[in-house]
Amino acid sequence: MIHDDKRYMALALTLGRRGQGLCWPNPAVGCVIVKDGRIVGRGTTAPGGRPHAEPQALTQAGAAALGATVYVTLEPCSHYGKTPPCAEALIKAGVARVVVALRDNDPRVSGRGLKMLEDAGIDVTTGVLADEAAWDLKGFFLKTDAGRPFVTLKLAMTLDGRIATATGESKWITGPEARRRVHAQRANHDAVLVGGGTARADDPSLTVRDMGIAHQPVRVVASRRLDLPMDSVLAKTARDVPVWLVHGPDALEARKTSWSVAGATLLPCDLNGAQLDPGALLTALGAQGLTRVFCEGGGSLAASLLQAGLVDQLIVFTAGLALGAEGHPGIGALGVQKMAEAPRLKLATQERVGDDIMSVWRRP
Amino acid sequence: MIHDDKRYMALALTLGRRGQGLCWPNPAVGCVIVKDGRIVGRGTTAPGGRPHAEPQALTQAGAAALGATVYVTLEPCSHYGKTPPCAEALIKAGVARVVVALRDNDPRVSGRGLKMLEDAGIDVTTGVLADEAAWDLKGFFLKTDAGRPFVTLKLAMTLDGRIATATGESKWITGPEARRRVHAQRANHDAVLVGGGTARADDPSLTVRDMGIAHQPVRVVASRRLDLPMDSVLAKTARDVPVWLVHGPDALEARKTSWSVAGATLLPCDLNGAQLDPGALLTALGAQGLTRVFCEGGGSLAASLLQAGLVDQLIVFTAGLALGAEGHPGIGALGVQKMAEAPRLKLATQERVGDDIMSVWRRP
Repeated sequence: MIHDDKRYMALALTLGRRGQGLCWPNPAVGCVIVKDGRIVGRGTTAPGGRPHAEPQALTQAGAAALGATVYVTLEPCSHYGKTPPCAEALIKAGVARVVVALRDNDPRVSGRGLKMLEDAGIDVTTGVLADEAAWDLKGFFLKTDAGRPFVTLKLAMTLDGRIATATGESKWITGPEARRRVHAQRANHDAVLVGGGTARADDPSLTVRDMGIAHQPVRVVASRRLDLPMDSVLAKTARDVPVWLVHGPDALEARKTSWSVAGATLLPCDLNGAQLDPGALLTALGAQGLTRVFCEGGGSLAASLLQAGLVDQLIVFTAGLALGAEGHPGIGALGVQKMAEAPRLKLATQERVGDDIMSVWRRP
Repeated sequence: MIHDDKRYMALALTLGRRGQGLCWPNPAVGCVIVKDGRIVGRGTTAPGGRPHAEPQALTQAGAAALGATVYVTLEPCSHYGKTPPCAEALIKAGVARVVVALRDNDPRVSGRGLKMLEDAGIDVTTGVLADEAAWDLKGFFLKTDAGRPFVTLKLAMTLDGRIATATGESKWITGPEARRRVHAQRANHDAVLVGGGTARADDPSLTVRDMGIAHQPVRVVASRRLDLPMDSVLAKTARDVPVWLVHGPDALEARKTSWSVAGATLLPCDLNGAQLDPGALLTALGAQGLTRVFCEGGGSLAASLLQAGLVDQLIVFTAGLALGAEGHPGIGALGVQKMAEAPRLKLATQERVGDDIMSVWRRP
């Protein structure tokens, strides 16, 4: 029974992850309905956040929901918003048991959904695969609790930690398999973020390509002075896929106007020394509703986020070449004097991807 | 049958690897004797190179060698040296079949051992697991063919490719499991090599510790000017475990004398620009009989070997911390302007070792 609970919840988590990058500002929840050992309904929060996972799974299950067990990765909602609460829908459908991975920390829900179910005589179990669910939904919780999105920092580096030659050449360090993996990773985040230097040097499109998806993550550039070329790919395509520019208080009005006219969204941000304050930068993105941000460097932005302890997950692609001490570092100046001051991360997984290594590290 | 051949040869290779670091200037060969599906003899080249693997395996097998199959990783020797040739011993023992992974490229052997066996009516098969054997014995072949040892470069770095803080602090970047692995790796090389800067900064002992082994690899320091402190661990222990110092033509006589008196062996070497020429350095070590050298940095020596294409195997330990752009780079200046000029290596394996990643890269 406990084993089955974990198995079905693992499936619900998989379904939930399908919604990552699509549901913000809402959490990407997964739901599985099981009747007599048979899966009769599945649901993932729909793009934009509505409908929720549960009503979709209930629709699939139809009459089979009566007396069924429902596995849902987050506590069903209890409040009347754009739609009636999911807890009510589950009660109406006559389900016998609801298994929940995590309580919702939304003050409008927070235990009320569970109580509604229990009051209706439904058997409620919580905490099944709670750690996994907490990780998957961490962006949603961070946004609610800390006002900032979950941050993945991705670095594609040589084996000596370089991202470009001394002359700025950076194509290609990693192989096609690694680059394809990056597109999939962009797709499960709400936004892709780069620093102004990277935007100038690489003129990137920052879109998800060749993955057969329709929805694109928001493209965010952190640029104190907004000194980004107006003939860049980002400027030319800002009306097709959203471009948000986070800028400092001293960005010139003319530049702000040019980018507004091009279709970009401007987000002002405080400085910390000469750079955009990384905490304020993320707060600005959280205030716009982002729950998961995929930062692709460059070295200064990476260092600034790491130094501030704001990198939740670091994904490193390591390629089999060296560029030497003259190459551009993947992580810029950190101001670390002693070993004990160095930002530390914990190894989660490592695997070969094509001819490169992909390692995933998490904030301890 | 082919499957069995590979299985027994794999065992012979494992036995051969046990001799790595112990047999130089001879190759570390493994031998397995099989009679009626039963292993009746095993042998590894003894420390110092004599006796060879085959006579040891024959002694174990005794009368059971009659009509048996012998698996040996390198062609049995055919020349009379300190001992009678192994080919003759195999013939005398009356073995029916000899399976060899690789021909010997020693001009005194090179096919003659195989011919002796065939002439005696023994069934000879060659080329079984030849690639694996060629890799294991590469140091011996490189010494014979190119006059230099096989080079493993080991780097223990942060995830941004640093080996020390700006202030020089380097203890500890990797964890105890990784450091223990390094001791095992030192043990299967003939010598451990570091640059003068590392010797000065770390005052290392460069010995193999806590591995239950008696034999220590030679300790080699590459130092153009021999400006190494005479109160260092290396100087104090040079009479216990060999210390070889490779120096440039301009090393002061007084320093040479001090180190000679301390018990070190001095090896002169030409310069390439301001540094010891990495090719000449390795030739000097090859001339002393070394077949496998384990280089542990620092950054300048690592860069110099990589730039010259002299790193056969690179072992990187990657730890979950960042030291930023101010940290000491694990690989120094390479003079790489374009991506196409960067030294490239091919990923062989990667695995988690404690909280670190160990990746192994080979020269393509």
